[in-house]
Amino acid sequence: MAEPNPKKEHKSPGRKPPDTGELLEGIRRADRTALARGITLVESTLPSDREAADRLVESCLPHTGNSIRIGITGVPGAGKSTFIESLGLHLTGKGLKVAVLAVDPSSSLSKGSILGDKTRMNDLSRDPRAFIRPSPAGESLGGVTRKTRESIGLCEAAGFEVILVETVGVGQSETAVHGMVDFFLLLKIAGAGDELQGIKRGIMEMADAIVINKADGANLEAARQARTTFRQALHLYPPKADGWRPEVMLCSSTEGSGIEAVWETIRKYREKALENGSFDRKRMEQNTTWLRQAVSEQLVSGFYENPEVSRAYRELEQAVAARQISPFRAAERLLELYGPNR
Amino acid sequence: MAEPNPKKEHKSPGRKPPDTGELLEGIRRADRTALARGITLVESTLPSDREAADRLVESCLPHTGNSIRIGITGVPGAGKSTFIESLGLHLTGKGLKVAVLAVDPSSSLSKGSILGDKTRMNDLSRDPRAFIRPSPAGESLGGVTRKTRESIGLCEAAGFEVILVETVGVGQSETAVHGMVDFFLLLKIAGAGDELQGIKRGIMEMADAIVINKADGANLEAARQARTTFRQALHLYPPKADGWRPEVMLCSSTEGSGIEAVWETIRKYREKALENGSFDRKRMEQNTTWLRQAVSEQLVSGFYENPEVSRAYRELEQAVAARQISPFRAAERLLELYGPNR
Repeated sequence: MAEPNPKKEHKSPGRKPPDTGELLEGIRRADRTALARGITLVESTLPSDREAADRLVESCLPHTGNSIRIGITGVPGAGKSTFIESLGLHLTGKGLKVAVLAVDPSSSLSKGSILGDKTRMNDLSRDPRAFIRPSPAGESLGGVTRKTRESIGLCEAAGFEVILVETVGVGQSETAVHGMVDFFLLLKIAGAGDELQGIKRGIMEMADAIVINKADGANLEAARQARTTFRQALHLYPPKADGWRPEVMLCSSTEGSGIEAVWETIRKYREKALENGSFDRKRMEQNTTWLRQAVSEQLVSGFYENPEVSRAYRELEQAVAARQISPFRAAERLLELYGPNR
Repeated sequence: MAEPNPKKEHKSPGRKPPDTGELLEGIRRADRTALARGITLVESTLPSDREAADRLVESCLPHTGNSIRIGITGVPGAGKSTFIESLGLHLTGKGLKVAVLAVDPSSSLSKGSILGDKTRMNDLSRDPRAFIRPSPAGESLGGVTRKTRESIGLCEAAGFEVILVETVGVGQSETAVHGMVDFFLLLKIAGAGDELQGIKRGIMEMADAIVINKADGANLEAARQARTTFRQALHLYPPKADGWRPEVMLCSSTEGSGIEAVWETIRKYREKALENGSFDRKRMEQNTTWLRQAVSEQLVSGFYENPEVSRAYRELEQAVAARQISPFRAAERLLELYGPNR
């Protein structure tokens, strides 16, 4: 069910942060209002909410991990929302509880591009087994990914068994989503030469499956050709660290064909990865990466926000361009400046 | 000409660093002993040499930039050294001055894997128009890449017109080399199913040209098939930022076939990139990236070297694994620890 985003209620300064014990109880009983309020708390940018948000996230942590987390990316026009709706309805039809989240740091600019349009996923949003949450308000990628990453935990604590994380497929967010899911799916369409363009460098290599959408009617032949091309291309890469060989599949979200095969592939992946231990290992590595990335981002942004550094940076960058100083020596000078003045 | 690596003479503590004014003069007159000594100074890990090395690098900087920098990568067995020797001899035969450098941070482990074997590139090493420098001693990637990056500048100041930078193609060093060259070439061999394996993820996307080596005799048909496969695969990617469409070529270093075509492609690339401004833009961006990377590396390594941080890190990493704390909150705790104790 799509919930109204009650963010505004948290914007009034002086408002007491919500009782996280109550929120946790609600989330654990799968009360979707409590879940929505919890996510709003996690998304809040009010410093006074941060402590409560951390408390809520940590109290949920022991109840997390029991879902399959699936990242779904594709360029605009690839049919992500119809695909997610088809897959989501297919899964709720099997009795599974499905949450849909989104990472789109640019959403404030490209309004409505991702989960923002209330008319999208109409059927899924009315499904009592589904929970759809629009992207957090446009901000830095770091902020948005932390919020999404922690919201996954809240959804898991509420008992959601499948988490679908949508990303727009045109920015830096795919790497972030790839780093928070178990299975990463690239959605493509064939025809109109689309298979020959528009894949951002690096995305194809992250995919655990490439699904060629809109494989129906007059498009079917082109979709089959695209499947062959992608299969050959994927064979140029060595197997992934977990031993998985990415699959290429056809589907039609409108006809509903291929959706079951996609789910079967994901189940097969999970089974294999659980068996060989790579499922848990990957999640552990993802956590360590998030920890280290968060540290790096903070260190680096703190550095460049230093007024002396930021002034000197502009000068040194020009000196590097004018070949008066090597970039390494310039870095040393900046670090010398920062040291005593921090 | 391959120079003996006179590194040892710089290892005795208390030795006075060389006169960088004299070194610069020597380098500018293309005195290869001066060049070799200059590179040794840049490669020195003695803190007392650092200042002189920086001075030398900076005095060379105004004389840099007048070469084409070509990165060459490929898995062991792809025939990198024979290829580099063929290309090098082809270019010195045209009257060009060619320097060969290498990035191989693992060379201390995989001794002799790269430019270390004195018997390799026999003919090129005797060529008076060539200068071959083995990889700096095994160290951190950051250290090795800085040394190689700055050695390129010294070679340019000595008037070398083509700089070939070799990398082993199995580690992290390709990205580093890709970030210091104008043109990045991936060497492959066909046959024995090699075209279907062994490309590290991400490398194919960095390549400006894929050269299928050993395309001779019984291998020729397989090489042609590999060319078709790679061409199709490369078509799946959008054009690069500079508008260049990577080319796939055949060559045989032993027969000498295809070498001229490789050079023609590089020349065509340079012409086009100079014309549309991307040549200089790319170099400028590379410098900015080096500056920012050097800053990040130092900030991050300084952080983890802090004894309190390093102790707390182990505990917090376990707490994250045990789902007692979120990775983001753990990062915050580490940063809080670091702040006042720095």
